[in-house]
Amino acid sequence: MAKAYERIADDLRRRIRAGEWSPGERLPAETKLVEDFRKSLPTVRQALGVLQAEGLIEKQHGRGNVVRKARRPVTRTNERHQWEKGRARQTLEERQQTGATERDTGLSVSDLVFSAEFKEIEADDDLAQAFDVPVGTRLLERVYRTRYREEEAPFNVSRSRLLYETAAANPELLDESKEPWPGGTQNQLHTVGIEVDRVIERVTARPPTIEETEELGLTAGVAVMVLRKTSIDTDGRVVEVADVTLPGDRTVLEFTTPLTRWDA
Amino acid sequence: MAKAYERIADDLRRRIRAGEWSPGERLPAETKLVEDFRKSLPTVRQALGVLQAEGLIEKQHGRGNVVRKARRPVTRTNERHQWEKGRARQTLEERQQTGATERDTGLSVSDLVFSAEFKEIEADDDLAQAFDVPVGTRLLERVYRTRYREEEAPFNVSRSRLLYETAAANPELLDESKEPWPGGTQNQLHTVGIEVDRVIERVTARPPTIEETEELGLTAGVAVMVLRKTSIDTDGRVVEVADVTLPGDRTVLEFTTPLTRWDA
Repeated sequence: MAKAYERIADDLRRRIRAGEWSPGERLPAETKLVEDFRKSLPTVRQALGVLQAEGLIEKQHGRGNVVRKARRPVTRTNERHQWEKGRARQTLEERQQTGATERDTGLSVSDLVFSAEFKEIEADDDLAQAFDVPVGTRLLERVYRTRYREEEAPFNVSRSRLLYETAAANPELLDESKEPWPGGTQNQLHTVGIEVDRVIERVTARPPTIEETEELGLTAGVAVMVLRKTSIDTDGRVVEVADVTLPGDRTVLEFTTPLTRWDA
Repeated sequence: MAKAYERIADDLRRRIRAGEWSPGERLPAETKLVEDFRKSLPTVRQALGVLQAEGLIEKQHGRGNVVRKARRPVTRTNERHQWEKGRARQTLEERQQTGATERDTGLSVSDLVFSAEFKEIEADDDLAQAFDVPVGTRLLERVYRTRYREEEAPFNVSRSRLLYETAAANPELLDESKEPWPGGTQNQLHTVGIEVDRVIERVTARPPTIEETEELGLTAGVAVMVLRKTSIDTDGRVVEVADVTLPGDRTVLEFTTPLTRWDA
């Protein structure tokens, strides 16, 4: 059976979703919840902690627990990679219609505000190992932020690096003003003769740093997922290393692993 | 360039790994670190927070920041599913040799301590939806905990459910004393005529609950990943729904997505 705090969280979650309190409204005081649920204050606080971690409520200084305006949820599937690969060789017109973020969020191009910042960096120990190149090798780092027009914080922050020499083979790839690039990174790589063979994603979780809390609009009690995406080309070379930070209260990463059939 | 707190964290991490302080030893006091690094106390604390989230140090009441004994790290790859499928039809002797946890941790069967608890439950809203069955349908819930013999906390806690009627077709599948079952769930399903076609994993992150902190041996500042694994058989039916809670300080989830070749 569910624990007491889970039952309280389930009950409050259901009532928030049903609209009993609107965004910006306060939940009953903790002491009132203790009375209503006939449970201890620590149990009630644990239930509220669950709803805070889910981003449903926010503890505001001097106001108590306030219902948050739901942020646009994101489901990021690994099927996006094959989909992007399919689009990499389509016409500009086809590529311009929609991108992976639209796919993940169900929003359209006009709902999204996009930013890209490019800079040249040198590979540190970690990136040198990831690309299998000497420390100090020149890389092009591209930092991407995409947000919903009606929200302040981006869905995530992505730091994507290409080998500088690879990108420089097509000078347009060095120019941040060409972003958002129709067809994304797989099309960019295609313009310099690279075909991606597989994508490896490594995921872990931790509390956000102070900067991430600010940048991603996180409330207390929200964790982040940190995803390192490594793209490997058909010659077995690492061609892109991206680190993506995704808020735990609004993001689900979904990975489908097809298995070969026994009768095959 | 890296931020000040990142440079401090990098420096301390390197020195901990190099053995400058042994597990159980204290780092220099925060005021001393402020002097050494010539940075503010908030910056030093932010750096220490990074190392806490990584599980490298632990803040002990009255003792300060103490180096932790490194816990066995786990890399859980999605390749485990195809590997388990391959083993599902092998002989008992072959299946007995090693399991998925050994693969993820690099440990051998004799290094691991395993526990399984079975109980019959009724599908709540969430599980009814996940299995596409009516609320109240009988399920077999199996809770698995595997730990390294030299550690107290398990690597993760996994709650796996099968449809009760499916499991009951082989009464041995209802018996927790038969666990650890050589060949795991895919072999168990094979004994009742089920072949898994694909596995869908949905991952998110949040701070741990109080129970999870205790059960998984977490220190302050560690987040957990919550993974829902759904196994779908060759007829498109959901045959297993498992919820796995994994500590962010010791677990990497790795997913490889192969892409079809353009010349194929």
